[in-house]
Amino acid sequence: MRQLYKFISIISLSFVLASCGGDKAEQGNGLAEFKPIKWKMVTTWPKNFPGLGSIPESFAKNVEEMSAGRLQIKVYGAGEMVPAMQTFDTVKSGAAQMGHGAAYYWKGKIPAAQFFTTIPFGMNAQETNGWFYNGGGIELWQELYEPFGLVPMPGGNTGVQMAGWFQKEINSLDDLKGLKMRIPGLAGEVVSELGAVPVTLPGGELFTALQSGTIDATEWVGPYNDLAFGFYKIAQYYYVTGWQEPGAALEFIFNKEALASLPEDLQKIVEVAATAANADMLNLYTAKNNQALQVLVSEHNVKVKKFPEDVIQGLKAASEKVVNELVENDPAAKKIFESYQSFLSQSSDYHGISEFDYYRNRDSH
Amino acid sequence: MRQLYKFISIISLSFVLASCGGDKAEQGNGLAEFKPIKWKMVTTWPKNFPGLGSIPESFAKNVEEMSAGRLQIKVYGAGEMVPAMQTFDTVKSGAAQMGHGAAYYWKGKIPAAQFFTTIPFGMNAQETNGWFYNGGGIELWQELYEPFGLVPMPGGNTGVQMAGWFQKEINSLDDLKGLKMRIPGLAGEVVSELGAVPVTLPGGELFTALQSGTIDATEWVGPYNDLAFGFYKIAQYYYVTGWQEPGAALEFIFNKEALASLPEDLQKIVEVAATAANADMLNLYTAKNNQALQVLVSEHNVKVKKFPEDVIQGLKAASEKVVNELVENDPAAKKIFESYQSFLSQSSDYHGISEFDYYRNRDSH
Repeated sequence: MRQLYKFISIISLSFVLASCGGDKAEQGNGLAEFKPIKWKMVTTWPKNFPGLGSIPESFAKNVEEMSAGRLQIKVYGAGEMVPAMQTFDTVKSGAAQMGHGAAYYWKGKIPAAQFFTTIPFGMNAQETNGWFYNGGGIELWQELYEPFGLVPMPGGNTGVQMAGWFQKEINSLDDLKGLKMRIPGLAGEVVSELGAVPVTLPGGELFTALQSGTIDATEWVGPYNDLAFGFYKIAQYYYVTGWQEPGAALEFIFNKEALASLPEDLQKIVEVAATAANADMLNLYTAKNNQALQVLVSEHNVKVKKFPEDVIQGLKAASEKVVNELVENDPAAKKIFESYQSFLSQSSDYHGISEFDYYRNRDSH
Repeated sequence: MRQLYKFISIISLSFVLASCGGDKAEQGNGLAEFKPIKWKMVTTWPKNFPGLGSIPESFAKNVEEMSAGRLQIKVYGAGEMVPAMQTFDTVKSGAAQMGHGAAYYWKGKIPAAQFFTTIPFGMNAQETNGWFYNGGGIELWQELYEPFGLVPMPGGNTGVQMAGWFQKEINSLDDLKGLKMRIPGLAGEVVSELGAVPVTLPGGELFTALQSGTIDATEWVGPYNDLAFGFYKIAQYYYVTGWQEPGAALEFIFNKEALASLPEDLQKIVEVAATAANADMLNLYTAKNNQALQVLVSEHNVKVKKFPEDVIQGLKAASEKVVNELVENDPAAKKIFESYQSFLSQSSDYHGISEFDYYRNRDSH
């Protein structure tokens, strides 16, 4: 029966054309009558923004090709259909069937959503994916979005981000005091604990703000995206010891009804294409960040800096405080954090003797 | 036209049922006439072996569901249809349409294939995937297999493997002399350079060989698979500083004609399902290795050891020699190594300031 159902689902749309009546020669002409399912995907990124925006596009292309055109998804950049920050509500309402963005953008509605992007001193990309797919992460995420009629799926990862571009050296925790820095989310609260002034600005305004002195520092993503924005032209120092977003996960969100209304095979196509897209993004960033760092250093003479140990320790202590506050004030955050922390504790032990130790041996750190 | 082609491809199979003539009530009964494409996948793993064998199974299940049953792939464990090491030839001949294994198993036919699994002190999983998908790796791999009528695709990754189980401590390079160790491939040549005696044995024979003293040491995979084999019951020391397989990549291989004969949408389904499977395996190992290490240490009191620095340096120097010999004697290996090494050199710089440095800061190494 299951096979019958699946078989019927795949041909049900085709039946407009194949609706019989005999003459096979007419099949080609029948194409105009073929009614594909047309979806809209709203995103929080400028149209075709490298990596963050290009992977949702390739996801849509894959789905269309896998479904032989039966599911066509039009991708909207931020502001094309709705502003970036209305992505969540637009998919919730069903005005778009799906969206792509980052869970921590919705922290105003759902504070616990932040665990599904990244937290300071949290998991890196490989660990996050292990937790998502095989450690119960996705199930907790789905449970969190359920009341909003949304289904989340992992939608990419940037890898470890860089600490950011600074106009002055950071030699001690004192140098953070009064520093105006664009740094959103939990990490903003962390630097605020240490006396800095976190500012929230969209990516497109960062260059001018840093150039004009409106801000003293900004974090963005990593070499690939940072090079494209040209920060090296105006900032003195590139601090590379990422701590604030050690493996920023992106998300696909689906209107639950829209997803459930798809035939089973198309649902599976969407799900597997999302898993592939999640991997595609990290692969892209891994390759492009490598190249871009080389260009920044050798062609643009960027001075790569690392925070001194006491700054790292200060950031770590403040991060712990900020995360604990989030967890104490929100039962959903508490439940998710327990799962997150338990996975992280194990993966930190395991990667200490595998990934970390391997880098140390191979690269003689 | 493209759309028309795609549309026709998807319904072409369905036309057995939808072949017109009128009565829609007959559709259900027509199912018996529906002819799915049936493929065989031969593998180099015991049937349903955790991770290595279970991921090809879930790949096949995904493909069947995404294609609504139009492409059904039956997975054969090693020895069920042919012995493990005949996987390559069986897919080449077309007796099976696809296979799953590891490229370095075919080094007797194609020495350069080893770069597409792993090399000692080479890339880890994240780097390997960056190189495969966005650094030209897959293209070189396809070129290498082209003369055999095979199309390769990445088929998973175990992450950093462990150095192995030893009956005596390794305190210096001298302790490697005369050591009988199961360690295949290039890594076997490396320990041979240092006076050890590399032995090749299939996984199923390792426990008995180690127990009886036929071998003094063995590497296998990592905590997840090692725990299942029960080495902790008979071996004294678990050396964890993996160097020999820092990110072992698995492979899908397809008979080129069989793949090309699929309708375009099914080709795309296979390709995207393979990308997802490649990620699925690393995610699984990341989660399960974490847990298994915990069990090995806290429940089975396994003594986790690391090689001293001079052993690491000795292994590294010998690895360089062995890889250079491979490259000098084989133009294909030379071409691939240039691409591999160029990517690795950049990713080693980049991960030094991102992944590695992040682990160090987070975990206070």
